[in-house]
Amino acid sequence: MELWFTEKQTPSLALSCLVKSTVYREKTKYQDLAILDTVEYGRMLALDGIIMTTEKDEFFYHEMITHVAMHTHARPEQVLVVGGGDGGTVREVLKHPTVSRVVLAEIDEGVVNAARKYLPTLAQGLSDPRVEIQITDAIVYVREHPGEFDVVIVDSTDPIGPGVGLFTREFYQDVAKALKDGGIMVAQTESPVNNKDLIQKIHRNLQGVFPLIRLYLGPVPTYPSGLWSYTLCSKGPDPVAVPDGKFLALETKYYTPEVHRSAFALPLFVKEWLG
Amino acid sequence: MELWFTEKQTPSLALSCLVKSTVYREKTKYQDLAILDTVEYGRMLALDGIIMTTEKDEFFYHEMITHVAMHTHARPEQVLVVGGGDGGTVREVLKHPTVSRVVLAEIDEGVVNAARKYLPTLAQGLSDPRVEIQITDAIVYVREHPGEFDVVIVDSTDPIGPGVGLFTREFYQDVAKALKDGGIMVAQTESPVNNKDLIQKIHRNLQGVFPLIRLYLGPVPTYPSGLWSYTLCSKGPDPVAVPDGKFLALETKYYTPEVHRSAFALPLFVKEWLG
Repeated sequence: MELWFTEKQTPSLALSCLVKSTVYREKTKYQDLAILDTVEYGRMLALDGIIMTTEKDEFFYHEMITHVAMHTHARPEQVLVVGGGDGGTVREVLKHPTVSRVVLAEIDEGVVNAARKYLPTLAQGLSDPRVEIQITDAIVYVREHPGEFDVVIVDSTDPIGPGVGLFTREFYQDVAKALKDGGIMVAQTESPVNNKDLIQKIHRNLQGVFPLIRLYLGPVPTYPSGLWSYTLCSKGPDPVAVPDGKFLALETKYYTPEVHRSAFALPLFVKEWLG
Repeated sequence: MELWFTEKQTPSLALSCLVKSTVYREKTKYQDLAILDTVEYGRMLALDGIIMTTEKDEFFYHEMITHVAMHTHARPEQVLVVGGGDGGTVREVLKHPTVSRVVLAEIDEGVVNAARKYLPTLAQGLSDPRVEIQITDAIVYVREHPGEFDVVIVDSTDPIGPGVGLFTREFYQDVAKALKDGGIMVAQTESPVNNKDLIQKIHRNLQGVFPLIRLYLGPVPTYPSGLWSYTLCSKGPDPVAVPDGKFLALETKYYTPEVHRSAFALPLFVKEWLG
């Protein structure tokens, strides 16, 4: 027997992975959570039937959502990760030695627990003494912690279900307030191939909230189209002007200083619709 | 009823597209050819069940296999396209005004005929008076035309079936001879996510054949992993050193001078296994 997991990435496009076994399944308070062992990508976390991350390709996403912002900030010490309950982003943040505290604000405790148990290569950082796990609605948490963070990383699900409020102008305004002077926010902002309208809307929502807004791209094989976007907003330094000497010699698989700079070279069609 | 086309990109990974209709189907002399009208990507050309190109995402591939080499060459006049019977690469080559002749060496006349009839946005350039279509085995054609071309673009299928001979050291040696002084070859070289062994083998086969060998990457949503590699070999200029003033103002969707340069910023894991 062959068991295939299929994600309808759009109503007319599907990605399917051959499954060795269902490792874990839970209806959490918020989502239908599954840990599958796939032949192609190792263990996979799916929420509501959508691939969040896999052992084999998670580095593309977690490195790119983390290290661009962390290298752009002058000296990141206090970091907030919104969502990201699998721990992959926290793991990458902890590679930066200036970091003294990482708050993970995740609404769904089920994700954190499942990751700890079944995705140890991602969740390994969650036990670090610098990490503080807040099982909470990040929208409320951000509002209640003004002026506290150097970097806020919005490692959210798609803008459906619990993730929807993390793409609004009000949330971005609260993030801007939660950041100290010179602070930086970065958010995953979906696929430039499939989500033109959404990315345009996000950038409209950010206009006037941050003085500097930049879109950058990177591959993620298990996400729709394989090409993903991130939006970095800065109250201080520009991510395309990070000096050579500021890049750390990190243990990564995808990210390099050259990759960092190159990620801002946008396809012409994206430049055109960003205006 | 829903009709889905499914390509097994690997034995454990599949991409599926909802199909409006089968536009054309033919067992050609070499391949099982299908033109499908898909909801997600418009018309699609599949050979032996593998997606070759689609109307909606073909520009990623055709622009990146063409314009990097064309801008790198000092003055491309005579161009050979190996494979590429759909015409997309020829269309891009013809955007360069120095070009006086483009030879398309395609083994399968069925591909050219189907593209002309069903994929006019790709095949449009094939009727240009500068284009010479040779229905022939490109391996033989290249061997018999030494010193004739400025740029050779190997727009092949995967290294199975008719495409297999286009990945050998002998073929690369013949291409090097078919190029004039300062000539450039570029070839599609599969996915860096799925085809590590193949890319390493290709680069071993190229060692000593060309003085300069460079891998670069770009997205192609309908290809396995969504991330594709191209290998450029030069008897003259370096693609990473094209001066600003040399880039033409082309009508493209993906390619820009910044994208050209950024494509050579390789993921760390690729740099490591290229050595």
